[in-house]
Amino acid sequence: MVVTSLIERKRDGVALDPAEWRALVDDYVAGRVPDYQVSALLMAVVWRGLSTDELAALTDAMIASGDRLRFEGLGRPVLDKHSTGGVGDKVSLVLAPMVASCGVAVPMMSGRGLGHTGGTLDKLESIPGFRTGLALREIEAQIQRLGCAMIGQTPEIAPADRKLYALRDVTGTVESIPLISASIMSKKLAEGLGGLVLDVKAGSGAFIPGRDRAIELARTMIGLGETRSCPTVALLTAMDRPLGRACGCALEVEEALQGLGGEGPDDLMEVTYALGVEMLLLAGVEHDPVGARRRLEKAIASGQALETFRRVVEAQGGDPMVIDDPGILPQADAVEVFRSPATGTVASVDPRIIGRAVVALGGGRNTLADAVDPTVGFVITVKPGDRVKAGQPLASVFARDAAGIALGLDALARAITTEGEPAPLPLVSHRITAAGVETLEHPASA
Amino acid sequence: MVVTSLIERKRDGVALDPAEWRALVDDYVAGRVPDYQVSALLMAVVWRGLSTDELAALTDAMIASGDRLRFEGLGRPVLDKHSTGGVGDKVSLVLAPMVASCGVAVPMMSGRGLGHTGGTLDKLESIPGFRTGLALREIEAQIQRLGCAMIGQTPEIAPADRKLYALRDVTGTVESIPLISASIMSKKLAEGLGGLVLDVKAGSGAFIPGRDRAIELARTMIGLGETRSCPTVALLTAMDRPLGRACGCALEVEEALQGLGGEGPDDLMEVTYALGVEMLLLAGVEHDPVGARRRLEKAIASGQALETFRRVVEAQGGDPMVIDDPGILPQADAVEVFRSPATGTVASVDPRIIGRAVVALGGGRNTLADAVDPTVGFVITVKPGDRVKAGQPLASVFARDAAGIALGLDALARAITTEGEPAPLPLVSHRITAAGVETLEHPASA
Repeated sequence: MVVTSLIERKRDGVALDPAEWRALVDDYVAGRVPDYQVSALLMAVVWRGLSTDELAALTDAMIASGDRLRFEGLGRPVLDKHSTGGVGDKVSLVLAPMVASCGVAVPMMSGRGLGHTGGTLDKLESIPGFRTGLALREIEAQIQRLGCAMIGQTPEIAPADRKLYALRDVTGTVESIPLISASIMSKKLAEGLGGLVLDVKAGSGAFIPGRDRAIELARTMIGLGETRSCPTVALLTAMDRPLGRACGCALEVEEALQGLGGEGPDDLMEVTYALGVEMLLLAGVEHDPVGARRRLEKAIASGQALETFRRVVEAQGGDPMVIDDPGILPQADAVEVFRSPATGTVASVDPRIIGRAVVALGGGRNTLADAVDPTVGFVITVKPGDRVKAGQPLASVFARDAAGIALGLDALARAITTEGEPAPLPLVSHRITAAGVETLEHPASA
Repeated sequence: MVVTSLIERKRDGVALDPAEWRALVDDYVAGRVPDYQVSALLMAVVWRGLSTDELAALTDAMIASGDRLRFEGLGRPVLDKHSTGGVGDKVSLVLAPMVASCGVAVPMMSGRGLGHTGGTLDKLESIPGFRTGLALREIEAQIQRLGCAMIGQTPEIAPADRKLYALRDVTGTVESIPLISASIMSKKLAEGLGGLVLDVKAGSGAFIPGRDRAIELARTMIGLGETRSCPTVALLTAMDRPLGRACGCALEVEEALQGLGGEGPDDLMEVTYALGVEMLLLAGVEHDPVGARRRLEKAIASGQALETFRRVVEAQGGDPMVIDDPGILPQADAVEVFRSPATGTVASVDPRIIGRAVVALGGGRNTLADAVDPTVGFVITVKPGDRVKAGQPLASVFARDAAGIALGLDALARAITTEGEPAPLPLVSHRITAAGVETLEHPASA
């Protein structure tokens, strides 16, 4: 049988031909190859990796399995950002309208939360009425009209990725740099982008915590983008503590609105600006980082970014009143303050403990089928390195009931430690391009 | 999900607990774990291997998935032989009746041919009427009565192995020493044996051609047997050329009858005697190899072995006339002699080319669903090292038609070469026991 021999060759470390990858993806999507053969092949890929040619062929086949976004005659560059996922990462909600306000079209295509990380779609859907499931032609029309959309992966985009990801999720074959790269890039490249900026997280709360592997992932995705007419740049950013203060869907939307209104937490805004600068440079609408940063700051200060967000919310069925009155977001029934048990210096705010606690509170997913409670979560106002006094409020828990409050307080007590030396990662530590890896000597957060 | 985390741990090189293997096998057989998770796990096992404890737990769970043969009050030891499979390997057909004639019960449980190798069941079924699909209780009764049976794996024996093997066969996960060992030993240990002799093939026609890996396989199976009250010994035998002369079901039965009648080819008989000696020694019915060999030779010379075979054929529904008149076996429609194209010394008789040609002639299987034509095959009368003259008959092709004859002649021309130095492997090169590996300095064939 042909597929068996493909599996055997991959198992033995032999690279398959591009035509074999194409046929395999086609046959899998068409239901002609069973899951049990593909899952064995995927495990062989986790083991043996993929050559550059194999990875390109797999990614191209995944793109070709579906439709693409088309932006002929748009008159402005189309760029997007992708994050490898973290805790408290509401960057997309601020970044997309901000960059779109600077003459770049942004069809921000995002995912749902999974495991300890949140998802942009879940956050957006905490806005009453907001629809993320737009059809391809709707997205194109909205981009033509507003220059911005905030959407989920449509069924037409890379259906092979949907099917493969669902299989990987239950067969222990998620953690593979080539498979992660093919999955992300097949979706992004199908957006018909003129450029892509990657936010690759490193640190204990990242899916790939180690810096070297995170950089390898970034370089793999950059290689795919660059060879497919999509200039790609990555920033390596800190995920050894939550980004910003809020963790939980509606709480994060509220914080994003603060960011768009010029009142966002410093770390959130620094990461957002850093990614935005790369987008404006890649788009060619600005030619030096200082000018790009200034333009982005102006989009925030002028209210233009917030106005773009308002239009996107309105266009996608959401209640635009949320911009003026975040109080219309769903609110938790129970709220409780967490106070510092000791005086000292905050050594760590563990993002995995926080992310898992959000899930345990009902605000995240263990499987894609789980429903998400948008009201629950945390607002944590301290960062590693902050001096705190015993009894000082450090965070709030938002929960459904007293049991949730207890669970949340316990998680905070474990996550926020004052023992040991704080050694937070630089907020934006590396800039990775096709040319190589640049260590940012003076990261913005330092 | 629990199974996903088992897969991830195995993927990361962590040994699973015995209880986890047991639960997994139980749930898989019961249909509670899907094929696609098991195939990914199997590939992770091919990659990472199994610890001794894991292998034992997996094997025991596979045994426990079914029933066992029971021989209470039999009054004689029960032993079996297993071969890792080769071309022209009709040893079982001679060995089982011969050893059974020496006071040892032999419930020879065999498999079907697959790929380039033949299977004992297919060969036996070329005897008109012969039934290999006996039920457990039938087998036990026949062993009580005759001391010998020649049977297939019944549905009651290790059903987990059947299900796992079918999945491995189509997912590139056959070639794994622990998985091969668990598969073989689960079936053999379920036979309730007092001892087991393994014929582990090495050389180009073996499933595991390399000597070191073949020895590793032998040692793995011996470890499983010895720790489960089944003393196990292995011989490493040559499969760099076909064993005996005949390759093809009915042709091999005819050769086995010659062997039982004292007229078998030397190499076939040497391997058969060597394995038989180990069985008599393990059974404790003989205590030195010389005496054991003499007893086996006497079983042949006296006609006792042939008589036992006749009774087995009769008991299992076959036509016992075959013993006196092999001409009642199904005969090929077309026969043609292959003559040496050159004068020289035979360097090689490639067993894979011959084995594949038998399949191509219709006499073997690509998949277990294929039907087997018992009439087709080869009789090859030369061995590596033989001097031959141009025009001398070296072999015969047995086929359905002229196309088959052409195919067979072409295969012989490719398989039998006179270029290069003959360097055949010693017929029986190593004896492997729980104590270690013994190189046989003066193999019987030398």
